[in-house]
Amino acid sequence: MRIVAAKKLLKANDQLAEENRSRFNRSGVFVVNVVGSPGCGKTTLLEALFAKLATRLAPAVIEGDLASSIDAERIERLGIPVVQINTDGACHLDATMVAAAADGFDYDKLDLLVIENVGNLVCPAGFDLGEHLRIVILSVSEGDDKIAKYPTIFQKSHVLLITKTDLLKYSNFNVERAVADMKHLAPEAEIFQVSALAGYGMDDLADWLAAKCG
Amino acid sequence: MRIVAAKKLLKANDQLAEENRSRFNRSGVFVVNVVGSPGCGKTTLLEALFAKLATRLAPAVIEGDLASSIDAERIERLGIPVVQINTDGACHLDATMVAAAADGFDYDKLDLLVIENVGNLVCPAGFDLGEHLRIVILSVSEGDDKIAKYPTIFQKSHVLLITKTDLLKYSNFNVERAVADMKHLAPEAEIFQVSALAGYGMDDLADWLAAKCG
Repeated sequence: MRIVAAKKLLKANDQLAEENRSRFNRSGVFVVNVVGSPGCGKTTLLEALFAKLATRLAPAVIEGDLASSIDAERIERLGIPVVQINTDGACHLDATMVAAAADGFDYDKLDLLVIENVGNLVCPAGFDLGEHLRIVILSVSEGDDKIAKYPTIFQKSHVLLITKTDLLKYSNFNVERAVADMKHLAPEAEIFQVSALAGYGMDDLADWLAAKCG
Repeated sequence: MRIVAAKKLLKANDQLAEENRSRFNRSGVFVVNVVGSPGCGKTTLLEALFAKLATRLAPAVIEGDLASSIDAERIERLGIPVVQINTDGACHLDATMVAAAADGFDYDKLDLLVIENVGNLVCPAGFDLGEHLRIVILSVSEGDDKIAKYPTIFQKSHVLLITKTDLLKYSNFNVERAVADMKHLAPEAEIFQVSALAGYGMDDLADWLAAKCG
């Protein structure tokens, strides 16, 4: 009985996600769903990315968190439109939440909408939000075994960002292992190595994303 | 209808957790549930802790992961009894899984059983496993805002370990902020600052845990 309910729920989510995607398509906005562990550097990456993209495109952000508006305030300080979703304990965003939050923007003025999911390497994997691209972040400080240990979310992503590469010299993170594990799970995925704080690899990532939005 | 099912499920979990705890009490083994984000350093901490405790007490471990036996193999290399639970996608351990895994040990030979939960700062918060003590880990590389952003799991823990303190000098992590946030949510909680790799604070933690098992 529970399993049927869960299936129904997922099916309903998929349907609503398609409606979100149609709406985003009509609005001509490119939508990215960013997933990764708590503290993997999602918001810091967005701050660095938006600085690189400032003259090229107009972004907006939906922030997903259990509680607080810490991340939304960081984005707002950049003068970028942002809506905070507080999930009140839920471990991932779903298409319903995104549909509600997506009402808050003027799409005529937007090229890119980034949805920063709740920090979680498990639950967001099962929920399409209506995005065009799913980016999964793995930070160097988390360790190179995480792709093997949490395969679902990596398998379902289009892009892997290995972040905090400025910490490589203080860690035993093996980039080759992480890349090999990702290629095994998601052969088509793009892979970037970046450090938002040190600026490593950010130009390439910004150029690539700008081209996607074009 | 779904809400009722979820409540029933949680109630059933609580009941089974109490049965687990009674069993652990009868066996005279102290049981710790370790929770934290993917890559916060749970397994590395256990390796360092068991090295410190080797002459004082006999531990065993239950490892929880979505997939793989990477962590269990690391524990097994230390000659410590270990059972791996693969949740096959589930985002946390529950009391049923622990009851099944707990059959695998000879309790006459054990003082301490550590349950390493699935790496997740959200979902494990709601599931009592029958432990005596819940330890939540926050690594320096995750950032000092995580207690405010993921309050439930911190509020429901007895001990906060701030790990990877060897990275403090490369980060903007504010220990005072993290400690203040934890004291606000869980005034009674013990707080330790450690680096398993550099050895900082590990003697104090090992002494404290050995006394608990006493």
